[in-house]
Amino acid sequence: MQELHFAVPMAGAVLCTLNTRHNSSMIVGLLRYSEAKIIFVDHKLLQIAEGALSHLSKDKTIKPPILVVIPKFENSSHPLLETPNIHEYENLLASESSNFTIRWPKTEMDPISVNYTSGTTSSPKGVVYNHRGAYLNTISTFLVCGMGPMPTYLWTVPMFHCNGWCLLWGMAALGGTNVCLRHVSARTIFESISHNKVTHMGAVPTILNMIANSPLNDRKPFTHKVEILTGGSSPPPQILFKMEELGFRVTHGYGITEAYGIVTSSLWKPEWDSLPLDGQAALKARQGVQHLCIEEVDVRDPETTERVPANGKTIGEIMLRGNVVMNGYLKDIKATKEAFEGGWFHSGDLAVKHPDGYIEIKDRLKDIIISGGENISTLEVERVLYSHPAVLEAAIVARPDDHWGQTPCAFVKLKDGFLEITAEEIINFCRDHLPHYMAPRTVLFEDLPKTSIGKVQKFILREKAKALGSLH
Amino acid sequence: MQELHFAVPMAGAVLCTLNTRHNSSMIVGLLRYSEAKIIFVDHKLLQIAEGALSHLSKDKTIKPPILVVIPKFENSSHPLLETPNIHEYENLLASESSNFTIRWPKTEMDPISVNYTSGTTSSPKGVVYNHRGAYLNTISTFLVCGMGPMPTYLWTVPMFHCNGWCLLWGMAALGGTNVCLRHVSARTIFESISHNKVTHMGAVPTILNMIANSPLNDRKPFTHKVEILTGGSSPPPQILFKMEELGFRVTHGYGITEAYGIVTSSLWKPEWDSLPLDGQAALKARQGVQHLCIEEVDVRDPETTERVPANGKTIGEIMLRGNVVMNGYLKDIKATKEAFEGGWFHSGDLAVKHPDGYIEIKDRLKDIIISGGENISTLEVERVLYSHPAVLEAAIVARPDDHWGQTPCAFVKLKDGFLEITAEEIINFCRDHLPHYMAPRTVLFEDLPKTSIGKVQKFILREKAKALGSLH
Repeated sequence: MQELHFAVPMAGAVLCTLNTRHNSSMIVGLLRYSEAKIIFVDHKLLQIAEGALSHLSKDKTIKPPILVVIPKFENSSHPLLETPNIHEYENLLASESSNFTIRWPKTEMDPISVNYTSGTTSSPKGVVYNHRGAYLNTISTFLVCGMGPMPTYLWTVPMFHCNGWCLLWGMAALGGTNVCLRHVSARTIFESISHNKVTHMGAVPTILNMIANSPLNDRKPFTHKVEILTGGSSPPPQILFKMEELGFRVTHGYGITEAYGIVTSSLWKPEWDSLPLDGQAALKARQGVQHLCIEEVDVRDPETTERVPANGKTIGEIMLRGNVVMNGYLKDIKATKEAFEGGWFHSGDLAVKHPDGYIEIKDRLKDIIISGGENISTLEVERVLYSHPAVLEAAIVARPDDHWGQTPCAFVKLKDGFLEITAEEIINFCRDHLPHYMAPRTVLFEDLPKTSIGKVQKFILREKAKALGSLH
Repeated sequence: MQELHFAVPMAGAVLCTLNTRHNSSMIVGLLRYSEAKIIFVDHKLLQIAEGALSHLSKDKTIKPPILVVIPKFENSSHPLLETPNIHEYENLLASESSNFTIRWPKTEMDPISVNYTSGTTSSPKGVVYNHRGAYLNTISTFLVCGMGPMPTYLWTVPMFHCNGWCLLWGMAALGGTNVCLRHVSARTIFESISHNKVTHMGAVPTILNMIANSPLNDRKPFTHKVEILTGGSSPPPQILFKMEELGFRVTHGYGITEAYGIVTSSLWKPEWDSLPLDGQAALKARQGVQHLCIEEVDVRDPETTERVPANGKTIGEIMLRGNVVMNGYLKDIKATKEAFEGGWFHSGDLAVKHPDGYIEIKDRLKDIIISGGENISTLEVERVLYSHPAVLEAAIVARPDDHWGQTPCAFVKLKDGFLEITAEEIINFCRDHLPHYMAPRTVLFEDLPKTSIGKVQKFILREKAKALGSLH
């Protein structure tokens, strides 16, 4: 992946990294959509690629892509049969001259990659990045991560997601070391940090959870600080405290595929060090301020695109514009036009802006619950749920209601050892910490459905809540 | 200066900061050349500005610029008489609405500033920077300096020089603190570091000299590391060691006005920590590798522009191209064309490229001495002179010679307490440490003439050496 992040654009082609957790039939759809010419595949995923190719080869109207298999370093017991359409990566490299001519982009706005969105609210869309945006976002991302020269970066964020937040380019720019894990677990993470002297890592909250709640004998001591950039959803204070205790410094960022990855981060001010821990956690949970290389990130009225006041209360939609916003959605002019209505990219995320300019997300536009005319931020309710000692994971969605319009419905996964907790206890706990109307009326205990990058798929939960019917 | 670095471009105008050590008649020439519309001047330099304006007002063909005086904060005993052509800065700001419209540049290649070169080899030329270059160089410079968020930067490099290496923009981008000194001395530098917790500073070698050779009671202890970026000429090992001992970490950079400031730096590799001190100093004295935001810095044949081999031996000229190379010289198409001959900016600096890609300057193209057909790098001879315990400052130039063509002639300033040293002793010391042909044949003891930013003016010394006539 690291090599191809340079080789593919230098060949004048466009990168399109695919989710390693997809199955053959999903891959077929994405390959068709992107009209891929070559697939590079790790030997572990060869079956999925072969399945997709075999399906594609039935369609006589298209030329199926060439397959290049990246072998493991040890000798394989099943040598690959090479044909004009199937190659082994290292053999292919060895057979070609290293005296090649770089095919530079014609303009800096030419596409460099297509990235499929994670699809928390709908089916994936192909987000087109250009060279200029990728260059600038690479720089801003390693600045947000607090990286100097020659960092050691542990990958738990998949490289296929927004080109690894552009950090594949970034690690090359800084002369850094990439550390990859075949299997991500608390044990492998701690081992890698200790062994490789990891300086930085990115992690979705699921990984923070995994680290913070890891059994003692999975942990290994390390004496340096590890900088973690987390995004996706805001980490609960309990997790933040635990991480700091274990030797990590967590920065919380907000990112979207359409803006090349990270958009804002909860940039820490030294004067906040003296605040009580709860206050610190609240500041750290905010999505923060925009990075250096995006022109403008603002909170605006979803309809009028008027700026909302920076009072920490008025909810608006996060909108962005500038160099590191996508060219558009591949082959989807309609969705592109809608996304850029009024000259701003509409993120679909609802937030407030605080008087100090830091933004704080309140909900996805599609997630917010309106109950008896009151807006309920599902994130605020989830934050309370996460502060309950028995709760491992939680998500809130709207349940349709004949009387209130909607009521909050909680899906909760309990920690091992707390399985006797009841819905009533959870509801009462929320009523102790929230206005009555915000507390869930329904609590269901089950595993949460997630996207391949660990985001909860609320649209699935919404369907479940809908199927329950009205409470009243 | 910090405010105007944003205000002037936001008004659609072009910055042109002037050397604070110029006198009125030099200022007249530069104001005419740049066709300045407004002069902002610190009250301490008011007389010089007034002198220049009074001279300009005699020329009826031009409209003299408006004068804006930046007052000291305490009440002045001589209040300024304001007229339509003379304003006090704060009064002017107070009298205007803060509800203004930014005049954005039409394209990102529009000029943002004009910077006069320091003139080590000729009279100053006006180097035109554009918005795109300034943006990218700002980012790369704070990366070269190793700055994270909210640094505290002590200014000893003048802000008028390459817009302070673009760090006025950089400090704003990082939310940093600027610390300025009215009088630069070892005592004020140490006091400021200790009092303001300075994290970073820039310094020409003269300042490093001043710090390293400071009397003990001018020093103040500090417990943190202060990162120093130095440029202009390579610091002698003795100075480097002393600086590290005092708590500074020195990075050596190479910069030129035509490339917005810093071009390369001696980026340190962790594996070098284990080398002997002499080896470390030799590596640190190299000008190093290019920063992230310039397309290419290379060592090439001055005539053919062919790349020289990276063998640490073959001398070529440093050439550059990319986003952070100037638009050109103001009103000087001929000089611009010459500078960009063959599609590369010709720096006029002679260097070798080492096998690891780091470059090392050997001389200015105009400074190199050719004696009996042998190239003599004046920098190499100067390095030996600096290693003599009695030498405070030294410079080598060519003395014309009827037999050898040229011979090396040394100008030396001795340290206090060593004034009895003879020319013969210096020559013998050089012969002990250099090939015979490289050692100076002539040594003159005197103060060295310098530009306003502390660079030795070799063209003046060359004239002196020429006046001596041939040795043979």
